[in-house]
Formats: sequence, C-alpha cells, structure tokens
Amino acid sequence: MALPRLALVPGEPAGVGPELCVRLAQRPRSDCALVAFADPATLRAAADALGLPLNLLHEDEPARGAGDLPLRMFPNDNAVAFGHPDPRNAGAVIGALLDAADGCIRGDFAGMVTGPVHKAAINEGGIPYTGTTELLAGHAGREVVMMLANEVMRVALATTHLPLRRVADAIDADLLRRVLRTTEAALREDFGIAEPVIAVLGLNPHAGEAGHLGHEEIDTIVPLLAELHSGGMRVVGPLPADTAFLPQKLAGFDAVLAMYHDQGLPVLKYSGFERAVNLTLGLPYPRVAVDHGTALDLAGRGVADPSSLEAAVATCARMAARRQAR
Amino acid sequence: MALPRLALVPGEPAGVGPELCVRLAQRPRSDCALVAFADPATLRAAADALGLPLNLLHEDEPARGAGDLPLRMFPNDNAVAFGHPDPRNAGAVIGALLDAADGCIRGDFAGMVTGPVHKAAINEGGIPYTGTTELLAGHAGREVVMMLANEVMRVALATTHLPLRRVADAIDADLLRRVLRTTEAALREDFGIAEPVIAVLGLNPHAGEAGHLGHEEIDTIVPLLAELHSGGMRVVGPLPADTAFLPQKLAGFDAVLAMYHDQGLPVLKYSGFERAVNLTLGLPYPRVAVDHGTALDLAGRGVADPSSLEAAVATCARMAARRQAR
Repeated sequence: MALPRLALVPGEPAGVGPELCVRLAQRPRSDCALVAFADPATLRAAADALGLPLNLLHEDEPARGAGDLPLRMFPNDNAVAFGHPDPRNAGAVIGALLDAADGCIRGDFAGMVTGPVHKAAINEGGIPYTGTTELLAGHAGREVVMMLANEVMRVALATTHLPLRRVADAIDADLLRRVLRTTEAALREDFGIAEPVIAVLGLNPHAGEAGHLGHEEIDTIVPLLAELHSGGMRVVGPLPADTAFLPQKLAGFDAVLAMYHDQGLPVLKYSGFERAVNLTLGLPYPRVAVDHGTALDLAGRGVADPSSLEAAVATCARMAARRQAR
Repeated sequence: MALPRLALVPGEPAGVGPELCVRLAQRPRSDCALVAFADPATLRAAADALGLPLNLLHEDEPARGAGDLPLRMFPNDNAVAFGHPDPRNAGAVIGALLDAADGCIRGDFAGMVTGPVHKAAINEGGIPYTGTTELLAGHAGREVVMMLANEVMRVALATTHLPLRRVADAIDADLLRRVLRTTEAALREDFGIAEPVIAVLGLNPHAGEAGHLGHEEIDTIVPLLAELHSGGMRVVGPLPADTAFLPQKLAGFDAVLAMYHDQGLPVLKYSGFERAVNLTLGLPYPRVAVDHGTALDLAGRGVADPSSLEAAVATCARMAARRQAR
C-alpha cells in the first residue's frame, strides 16, 4: 500500500515552523509522504540559517534524500524576517491551511500536520481567527474535540479557551455527551483501541466530594455517565482530578476527559512536553499539531527542538494508515 | 542541641494512620524525637496486624530500639475495627489534634505531623469539621496557606476546597497579598531560602492571553504583583498554568502559587505522590500532614505505603530545626 500522503503546513512563517519543517526533511520517512504547503523563499531562508540542505520538489515527486521536500507553493506577500510576524502574510498562512483542509476532504491527502500560528498577526492582517482548531472545525462544519497527547497520556478537553468563570455554566450533559462520543470514536478509529476506557474528571475539587464541594457532578456528570455506560461506553468517573493522573490509575485509561484547560494540561505538559502533540478529533481527516507556540525568540537561530513536530507527523501517519486500512 | 520533639497524630484510628505510625517506630531517628498522640490499643492492634514489634513508652522516655514509641494517651471510646470508622471515636481524634496544637503553641513540642482524618466520621460524631488545616487555623486564630510539596516542586493554593464556580469571585488582591506574604515568610523561615522566588499562576487559561480569555489577570493579579515586586518580593507572573511547571521553568522557582485546587495539584501529585506532603503555612508552629486519605480499604492489611508519613516527619523535623536555630 502507498504511504499516506500528509499535508505539512508550517504555520507562522516568522516563527520556528519553517525551520522545523526543514529539519524534518533531512531524513527520508518510511511512514508517510510529506508535502509542505508553504512559501519556498521562507523555507530556503530557514535552511540557510540552519546550514542544512534543502531541495524543494514538485509536490508529486517523492523525497529520496536528505533535504528533499515536496512543495505546494503558497508565496508570502512580503519577505519574512524571522522573529517578526508580518500581518501582510496572514492571507498566505490561512490560505495554506484551508487548501490543505480541502485536499484532505477531497482525499488527495490522508491527513494534516500543522506548525504554530501567530494569532495576533492573523487578526491584524484582517482575518478573524481564534485558533487553527476552530478554523478547521468551521471549514469542515464539524464539532470537534481538542486532545493533547504524548507517550504517557491522552487528555481531551470538554471546554478549551474559556475564561475560568464561564466554565461551570458551559458544562452540560449535551456538551459532555457529544465530546465523549467524538472522543470514543477517535480512540477506536484513529488509535485502533477496540474498547476504549475514558476517565472523566469531576468539575469541582475532589469531584465535588458527594456534594460538599459543588453539585455539578451529582446533577450532570453522574447521570450522564450512567446513561452512556448503559449504552455500552466504557466511561469511568467522575474522578477527582488530583489523583486521576497517578501512574497506577492512568494505566487503566485510554484517555482522560478534563472539564477545562488548566485542569488537564499542566500535568500533560509536565509529563512530556517535548513530544506532546495537539489532535483535533471529529474532523473528516486526521489533524495533528505541535504542542508549542511560534517561539519567535528562537526563530531562525537553529536551536528550536523538532521533537513535537516529529511526534505530530508520526502520530498523524499512524492515524492515516489506520484509516486507509479500514 | 536536643532533637526537635514532634507530636505525631495518627488521625482516623480505623484508617492506615496507626499502622503507618507503627512502621515509623521501627527505626530510631536522628532528626527528631516523635511522641504519638494516640490510643494505645489501636496502635497495638496495628502492630499485631503487621507482625511488627511495638513498645509504647512514656512520652518523656527516648525511643532507642526498633518498635519504641513514646506515647501520650488518647484512648478511643470504642474498640477500633480497621476499615470501619466509628463516629463515637471522633472526640478522641479531635482531642489528640487540639492537645498537640496546644503543646506546640506552648513550646512543649516543636511541630506537628498528622495522618489522615475521616471527615464524615467526625461530623457524624457531632463535631463540625471541614479539615485539619481549618481546625488548626481556627484553634490558633491564624489565616493559613495550604502548600503541597515533594522533592520536585512546592505548590501553594490561593483557594482550596471551593466549588469551581466560586473560585473566580474568591480571588481578590487582599487574599492574594495575604497568601503571598505568608508563603514568602514560610519559604524564608521554614525552608531557609534567603530570597525566595514565587511563581504566580494566572486564573484563566494562558493567564488570560492579554484579556482575550478573562480579565482577572489585568484587573487584579498584574497590579498586585507589581505592588509586591516594588516592595521587594520576588514574584513572577501571572504565568500560564500549562507551561509554568515545565522542568526548565520550575528550576527557577522556589514555589508556585496556584489559584485553585485542580490547577496545581494534579501535576504536583503526578510528579511524586508517594513522597508528597501537605504543609500548613502561617501557624505559630510547623505542621505537616500526609498527602493521602484514610485508605480504609488498605487499613490493617500491612500494605499501606509509609513514604508520605516518613516524608512528612522528615520535613517537619527540618522545619523545626530551622526554627530552633534562629
């Protein structure tokens, strides 16, 4: 079977995305065929800064040697100065993401891997943008779930970028039901887990401690989990967040659903930041992103760590291969 | 100088507290002299269950050999069945804690180490009780700060056992100022850190991301930290919680102040649960507790891990020795 063909979108051209893509092109892959959706001049500037070879190929040519990188061109409107995002290049950044999404939906590509995007530069460029996850969800017309994963744990989020004071009211049974169904389907289909077990955290400390520390568990989470459990879903909880991640407990779970951002992500990132990736579950195609920002202070200096992008590509390649095998 | 004399209060007699105290008595200590505040029959039953020697001594006799344990007697009203808390023993449990607190305040003891208490059994026994931290704070008439610590990190909490929906309104400048001052004083006096650096987390994800994800950072936290910083306190923040605990960042901090329970404790416990301890800062004496519950399912079986109680005693002994040396 042919290797899965993945769209590789570096994201903000003034950040570390382009140089991480150049680093990835230094060794041939046996798990996927990458096609960069990017500006050729920026990639060449990154290669020069790193002192690494780069041979940009037509997107249909296979990469064979160190530095080979098949390319679909999205020229920037303005030359890139590493470390200094230019809002005039916002169109090229977003254009590459949406074209890659179209390619994935048409089936020309088996998945998408993305580098970090600079939110402010896109908005200053006149394009409303809250995040690539939201952009791709809107483009595909799907409700999605954000999941962060590394070799130690997978953490899905019921709410993502919401002020803390709005979290409690945002958690209801309909939301949790949709999030858990999307998460379970992805664990089966994308991760190949036949009977996934999902641990669901409580909203309140100690999962509400029988109502002493909040009622959302009793009112919402417990009844929903009973409903889903009787429907055959292997859900466990609501669990106190502070002990759910202890290694001996974690070993029994295929994923943990956190109710909000800072309940789940500090421990995920602590447990293996370099190799963590950000997955969007529920799209018609696998999409995996790096779990770090544009790192403008490092861009063009050749010191950025490619571990997260490498993990993102490897994860996306495995997910795409599972979908191809079905 | 004489070894610091510490009060050791096992907590719930039907839980693992008594057997953990028996385990601790198996080797002589060079860092402190322990006096158990407990029921002798329960300690003997625990020793029998574990098959370990136990010689209960008068509280003024020194422990010399394996199993020696100086004791101040707090007889239970009813015989203990491990695994089954009896509300009729609530008076003995609370009496031991308050007598130990009196002894610490009088200077008869240099600090207190406590095992886990069973909240429901105390309340069912007719004694209003929300936690030992709150009990000791009320007894001493002090505002205290809860800090969890292990060999990897120290995490102080601005709010503790509060439903999530009440957290945002509970965070104000007066609270944070008091908590930070208490924390800084303890880092200096109890931990011997001359110029402690405290990282302060944001309330919202990404520390509010310049107001896009909440305003409490801009309205409250940033101005307070500026005020404290200009007064000489080495505070850093507000920092996004998901990256503040990355090892390379953590290395620069002596403690992290989390705004609420589930923002700080999952990562603390993941990073070393067995050896984590729970400190009460701001009391007139050092108080250190285990970082686990009564573990009723393990009680009397000889399988409970004494690492947290051992770490609590060692931590309290170091803190007491620093206060004695002043």
